[in-house]
Amino acid sequence: MDFEIIDKDVMGRIGKFETNHGKVETPTILPVVNPNIELIPPKDLKKFGAEIVMTNAYIIYKTRRDEALEKGVHRLLGVDIPVMTDSGSYQLMIYGDLEITNEEILSFQSKIGSDIIVPLDIPTPPDADYDTALNDLKVTIEREKSALTFKGKSLLALPIQGSTHLDLRKLSAKEALKIGGDVYAIGGIVPLMDTYRFQDLVRIILEVKSVLPSNSVIHLFGAGHPMIFSVAVALGCDLFDSAAYAIYAKDDRYLTPYGTKKLEDLHYLPCSCPICSKYSPNELKEMEKSEREILLAEHNLYVSFEEIRRIKQAIRENNLFELVESRIRVHPNLLKAWRIIREYKDILDIYDPFIKQSFFYTGIESCYRPVVRKHQDRILNVEIDKEEVVISTDEGELADFYIKPPFGVIPAEMIESYPVGHSEVPQAELMEEEALKMAVEGLKRFLDYHSDKRFKIRVNSFWMKYLKNLPKNVVIECLDRRKDLDLQE
Amino acid sequence: MDFEIIDKDVMGRIGKFETNHGKVETPTILPVVNPNIELIPPKDLKKFGAEIVMTNAYIIYKTRRDEALEKGVHRLLGVDIPVMTDSGSYQLMIYGDLEITNEEILSFQSKIGSDIIVPLDIPTPPDADYDTALNDLKVTIEREKSALTFKGKSLLALPIQGSTHLDLRKLSAKEALKIGGDVYAIGGIVPLMDTYRFQDLVRIILEVKSVLPSNSVIHLFGAGHPMIFSVAVALGCDLFDSAAYAIYAKDDRYLTPYGTKKLEDLHYLPCSCPICSKYSPNELKEMEKSEREILLAEHNLYVSFEEIRRIKQAIRENNLFELVESRIRVHPNLLKAWRIIREYKDILDIYDPFIKQSFFYTGIESCYRPVVRKHQDRILNVEIDKEEVVISTDEGELADFYIKPPFGVIPAEMIESYPVGHSEVPQAELMEEEALKMAVEGLKRFLDYHSDKRFKIRVNSFWMKYLKNLPKNVVIECLDRRKDLDLQE
Repeated sequence: MDFEIIDKDVMGRIGKFETNHGKVETPTILPVVNPNIELIPPKDLKKFGAEIVMTNAYIIYKTRRDEALEKGVHRLLGVDIPVMTDSGSYQLMIYGDLEITNEEILSFQSKIGSDIIVPLDIPTPPDADYDTALNDLKVTIEREKSALTFKGKSLLALPIQGSTHLDLRKLSAKEALKIGGDVYAIGGIVPLMDTYRFQDLVRIILEVKSVLPSNSVIHLFGAGHPMIFSVAVALGCDLFDSAAYAIYAKDDRYLTPYGTKKLEDLHYLPCSCPICSKYSPNELKEMEKSEREILLAEHNLYVSFEEIRRIKQAIRENNLFELVESRIRVHPNLLKAWRIIREYKDILDIYDPFIKQSFFYTGIESCYRPVVRKHQDRILNVEIDKEEVVISTDEGELADFYIKPPFGVIPAEMIESYPVGHSEVPQAELMEEEALKMAVEGLKRFLDYHSDKRFKIRVNSFWMKYLKNLPKNVVIECLDRRKDLDLQE
Repeated sequence: MDFEIIDKDVMGRIGKFETNHGKVETPTILPVVNPNIELIPPKDLKKFGAEIVMTNAYIIYKTRRDEALEKGVHRLLGVDIPVMTDSGSYQLMIYGDLEITNEEILSFQSKIGSDIIVPLDIPTPPDADYDTALNDLKVTIEREKSALTFKGKSLLALPIQGSTHLDLRKLSAKEALKIGGDVYAIGGIVPLMDTYRFQDLVRIILEVKSVLPSNSVIHLFGAGHPMIFSVAVALGCDLFDSAAYAIYAKDDRYLTPYGTKKLEDLHYLPCSCPICSKYSPNELKEMEKSEREILLAEHNLYVSFEEIRRIKQAIRENNLFELVESRIRVHPNLLKAWRIIREYKDILDIYDPFIKQSFFYTGIESCYRPVVRKHQDRILNVEIDKEEVVISTDEGELADFYIKPPFGVIPAEMIESYPVGHSEVPQAELMEEEALKMAVEGLKRFLDYHSDKRFKIRVNSFWMKYLKNLPKNVVIECLDRRKDLDLQE
């Protein structure tokens, strides 16, 4: 399958792929449709932004097999957009054994004309012991191999399992790649999301991404909460499926990109979707449950697709880092999760475009963006044709180089160019220590690299405490000496 | 006038006040209506969430005086909700002299039945020299004194001027308070907002707030961009007026709480309001300008009131700090601006409720929340009946006290209570230096306070470098000694 990448930022991208029922633009959400419970008519899902839906082949097989074989899954649901079918492995995880084989469910999916079929993988839950996870995975891999036979004209999604064992996740991805799927679907992660274990989720995604080629379509199985879309897209995920919109609505829960609200706790509707612009919380609370459930499901869909559009727009503007760094503030576990990207520099460096329109500093996470390190590497190669070089912290002064956190050393002639010249960064005194240290680290590497030169560093006293243990070819001059003396006392 | 405060958080509040045309719940936005240019019919503004509108008495006086005197301003505009009238001082700032006196325009506002009238103040622009600002202010104060005579049944809004001179802003607030307004309207700030000088704006608001009693209604004149609503409400502002929704729409600009977008740059509409759910960016771009202008104005209103509802809900949930700390990431100048609240501890401490549901850490700004300092003060008074006290960084260990950043020292019996027990905070290794230092500072104060006791502090090696220069009554024990040895090498 061709995955046409139209635009990209961080590790995320806007892409397109073709199915038997038309193109799908990613990132996107597949609303999950229960073939037997109609909450919102599937044909109406387009109006919320849906380009593709997902349904459960196992449930159809158990309840409406003949009808589905006769009509095909699209007519069964009444939709003309692409349909992905799940195999029932979620039911397998919840209820144990299913009365169906991998081959039967694959063949069925193919016969009913599913656009994306999925083998009956074994979704091992988080924290499973290693042997269980490995044995489950072996079964999954075998079933994925068998799946090729049933592909026909459908696309094939290969689940990636392995519980929270990162080496097994990588093994799963490698084997799936060998088999050759059209979509790689990271599974068994719903329990991680339900318990806000976003660090584990981020690690799993990054380990899987480290194995798969950049043009692989990645589906995050069961990820339907808008709270994690921006982080997941920024890590390179393309598809999400949402049963959440309906499940949460049934339970009077209201989705937002900054978490879930219980309707009973809402005094105001913090959204402007057609539902929230029309009703007050009290009106919703007082209406019949069945009517309310539909309206909440509609809100949940509106807000989910809104977040997808916001993310896509951020990719177009190349400010997905800024969006993610704002979104992770909504829960400290997301903050923690994003902070581990520091450990995955190499893969971020490969994906993230170097040139962008702007660099807005949002906090210490901004220091982890690849451009900061890349800038520090790049300026090592700037040629210096002077014997004595002046570096200053004050852009108003004449100097050969300037110090600007978090970037470090900036040649005077690059002060107007990206990234530094297109950056909005608070003054050093208002920045996090980490940003200052990052700049000093860059400075030290630069000084070491040019150990044959003499440097004069002119700084204001604020900087003095950060500039310790510099090499011998450096003289420091304090621009506001009096304060400097105070500091030394 | 009675300002009934229903709920509060940070320095913000949800309040209610009565006008001649009904109650207004704050915080809210007054959409500005031009009596001669109908973009959205004023009577339709309620559907977006408007509870009160603003119009310009000077323009009405110049163009439709007799009609207004006959019908009154409500019938003139065709609305039944409260109307605030502006006096024309904005026109004064832009065009210089007006052909009207303060008394004339006040009397006119009163006669046409305005619910909130405003004298003809002098809006001195930012950075005016001190004498100009002072002289302008003297005129404003005189005109405010005269206004009392014309009040009748209307409410009186007294503008606060003084340019960027903080002492003049305070003087203006003090004088206005003496005169006795119903609403205090901070003016002359549009140029600050247009140039993203949010630090200056924050300082002006805080200085004015430091003078006015807590139950004064504060209007931020000309502040119509949703980007600053959360910060302004958190600092205690109650009313905003928005001509922006229309002005930006005329110019094909699209408001969002994270900044302004040009329609031409939008590939996706990052919003789910009834307009953005119905149209694509291309459909908007291709339609007649007059039609597009209305739709953009509608979007701008929807998104502005959405932000107000979101802020009000945050006040109800007592997580306005969390909302603001997320919103300030949208522009580094907002980040910088919020960081100066550190300098205004005293006033924040007075306003911010001590007990809340939860404490979500979002970054170094979370360390500035009053609860952190208040907790550190409070635990000084915890009685210690032991001679040797054990403090640990590891909650899994038995100890008398624990260290948890940014709070500092937590008595074992308080580990489940607010704030610490209700906090979500990353592990120390993933936190900003400032949070760790804040905790160490709290620890040191605690140790100093109990200099008669002996302390054993059991920490993991990560903490070693932060625990220097502790008093002599303290022994440090490293929980993971091997790593500790590595560190000392």
